[in-house]
Amino acid sequence: MSVDTIRWTGKAVRIIDQTKLPNKLVYIDCRDVDTLWHAIKTLQVRGAPALGIAAAFGVLLGIKGYKKDNSAAFVRYVCELCDYIGKSRPTAVNLFNALAQMRGLALNNVDKPVALLKAVLEAEARAIYEEDKAVCRAMGKHGAALIKNGGTYMTVCNAGGLATADYGTALGVFYAAKEAGKKFKVFALETRPLLQGARLTAWELMKNKIDVTLICDNMAATVMKDNKINGIFTGADRIAANGDAANKIGTYMLGVLAKHHAVPFYIVAPKTTFDLKIDHGRKIPIEERSADEVTSFAGTPTAPKGVKVFNPSFDVTPHELISGIVTEYGVIKTPYDRNIKKALL
Amino acid sequence: MSVDTIRWTGKAVRIIDQTKLPNKLVYIDCRDVDTLWHAIKTLQVRGAPALGIAAAFGVLLGIKGYKKDNSAAFVRYVCELCDYIGKSRPTAVNLFNALAQMRGLALNNVDKPVALLKAVLEAEARAIYEEDKAVCRAMGKHGAALIKNGGTYMTVCNAGGLATADYGTALGVFYAAKEAGKKFKVFALETRPLLQGARLTAWELMKNKIDVTLICDNMAATVMKDNKINGIFTGADRIAANGDAANKIGTYMLGVLAKHHAVPFYIVAPKTTFDLKIDHGRKIPIEERSADEVTSFAGTPTAPKGVKVFNPSFDVTPHELISGIVTEYGVIKTPYDRNIKKALL
Repeated sequence: MSVDTIRWTGKAVRIIDQTKLPNKLVYIDCRDVDTLWHAIKTLQVRGAPALGIAAAFGVLLGIKGYKKDNSAAFVRYVCELCDYIGKSRPTAVNLFNALAQMRGLALNNVDKPVALLKAVLEAEARAIYEEDKAVCRAMGKHGAALIKNGGTYMTVCNAGGLATADYGTALGVFYAAKEAGKKFKVFALETRPLLQGARLTAWELMKNKIDVTLICDNMAATVMKDNKINGIFTGADRIAANGDAANKIGTYMLGVLAKHHAVPFYIVAPKTTFDLKIDHGRKIPIEERSADEVTSFAGTPTAPKGVKVFNPSFDVTPHELISGIVTEYGVIKTPYDRNIKKALL
Repeated sequence: MSVDTIRWTGKAVRIIDQTKLPNKLVYIDCRDVDTLWHAIKTLQVRGAPALGIAAAFGVLLGIKGYKKDNSAAFVRYVCELCDYIGKSRPTAVNLFNALAQMRGLALNNVDKPVALLKAVLEAEARAIYEEDKAVCRAMGKHGAALIKNGGTYMTVCNAGGLATADYGTALGVFYAAKEAGKKFKVFALETRPLLQGARLTAWELMKNKIDVTLICDNMAATVMKDNKINGIFTGADRIAANGDAANKIGTYMLGVLAKHHAVPFYIVAPKTTFDLKIDHGRKIPIEERSADEVTSFAGTPTAPKGVKVFNPSFDVTPHELISGIVTEYGVIKTPYDRNIKKALL
C-alpha cells in the first residue's frame, strides 16, 4: 500500500478520512486532541494497529502546546490525556497498549525536565509508528507461506494498509504473497453496517492489482460451499491469553462457517493486539454503536422509524475455531494458552 | 397483516411498491403485462407465494384485451404469455407452478369458446389467490405450535404478508402464535443487498406489535452465541424432492450457524413452493442479480468503481440442516424424501 494512512507532521496527526473512501481520497490534519478523538470515534481513522499509533500521536498533539515547566504536573497531564484518548473506543487493545506505553514512559521519567520528557515521548510515538511498519512486513512474510499459488481466500472488514502504518495485517499476508510471485483470488465481505470491506478492502486490493470479488456478508456461506476456499484471513482488535479473538462483527460467523466447510481460519495480528491480562474472550469489552449506522444510509432511512436495533461492532471468535494466529514472531498454533505466552513473553 | 400486498381489480394487478417501503406505502396498478413483468423483475412485488399470484394475475392482464374468437389461437397466446412471464425471475417455483396451472387449464379447455376460456382462467387465478390466504392460515396454525411463550426467534428476508396474499409463511407463524396469546421476541436480519428484512419484515412486525430487533446479517452468529435463540423460521423459494430448500441469500448461513448453536431451524412454505421434479437442491436455478445492488445505495457508490461482484439472490440449505418444513398439511420432518411425498402427493 502506497497510501499514507497516518503520520505525525510535527504539528498535526495527518490521516486519511476513511469515511470518504472509496469516493474521495481526503487527508485531514488533526491539530488538537479533540479533533483526533472525534476522528477515532467516527472511524475516520480505524483499524487496531492504526488506533495504537493514533493514540500515541494523540499524546504528542496534547503536549505540543504545554508551556509550564513542572515535570510532576506535566506527567499528571499526560496521564489525563491518556485517560481521555482511551475513552474514544473500547475494543481495540492496541490503543490502550500504546497509551500504557506513553504513560509508563512519562511516569518513569518524572525526574526529567519537561523539554526532555516531551522529546522522549515524541521518540516513543515515532517508534510505535516505525515498529508497526516492520511488524506488518514480518507478519506478511510469515502469513504468505500459508498462501497457495492459485488459491482462493476470504477476508472481512479492512485489515490492510488503511488499518496500519504499513501494508496491513490480514491484507499484508496477501500483499507479501503477491510480492513473492503468487497468484490467488480474494473474496472480500462488504462488512455491514459501515462497509469497510466494500469501501476500503476492495479499494486497497484493486489498487494493488489483487483479484478481488466483493460479496455481501450473508453470501460467505454459499461461497464457501460452492467454491474451494483455501483459507480465511482476518485481523483482530484484541486477543485474550487463551487465543479467543475479538474482531469486526462477522468474524465469528466466518469462524463457524469455516469449521463447517473445513476451511483453515487464520487471525493476523501483532503482539500489541494481545491482552494477556484477559484470560478469556468473554471478558473483552465489545463496543455497541449507534442504531443509525444500521437504519439509514447516506441520509436515506432503510428501516422503519424507531425500530429497535442491536449493533455490536465486534464479536469474539473462540480459539478452538482458529487454525493459527499469524504474528511478527511466526504462526502461533494450538494449544494457544501455552504457545501465546511462549511466543510473546 | 392488514395490508393488501396484491389484488386483481378486474382491470389491473394492484400491488404495493415494496421498493418504496418503509418510507412510503405506495400502490401501483399494473395495467399491462409488461408493467407487471417489470414490477416482478425489480422486486416491487416479491416473495415466492406472491409471485405465484402475480403470475396468474399477469395472465389475466394479458388476455383481458384479447378480441379474436379462435380458441386454438387464444390458447397458443396464453402459452406464449406464460413463457414470457416465466422469464421475469428464475428461482421461486411458485411462479412456474401458477403458470403451469393456468397453461394446463387453457390447454385442457381448447375446445371451449374464448369467452368461457377467459372466465375459467380468471376463476383459476382468483382461486390461486384465495387458496394462498387459506394456506397461510394453515401454515401459521401448524407453525405456531413450535413457538414457545417467552421465546426468542430469528428470521431473514421477508416471508410475511408482503410475500403472500395473507399474513405470510415464516411471519405467519409469528402472527398465529401472537393470536394464540404467546409472547416472544424476534431478531430480523436486515438481508443485504436489498434490505427486505430491515425495510419489510421490521415494518410488518412493528405494525403487528411483535417485539422485533433489527440486526445486520453478520450479527446473527454472535446473537445465537450470546442469546438463547429458540428457533429460526424462514420462507423458501423452491424446495427439492429431498427437502433441500432455496431461499433468500443468507438462509444457508443461518442453517449452518443454527446447527453449530443447536438452534432448531424451520422452513415455512406451502405445497406450491415444492418442486418434486427436482431431486436435489443443486439443480435449483439460482438468480444472480446486478452488481449495482451491492456497489451503491440510493445513488451513492459504496464500493470502488468497476469492482467485481458476486450477487446471488438465493442459496440452498441442504435438508440435513433443516429441523422441519412447516406446510399447510403440518410439519414435515426427516426423512424428507419419503415424508414430503407422503404429505404432498
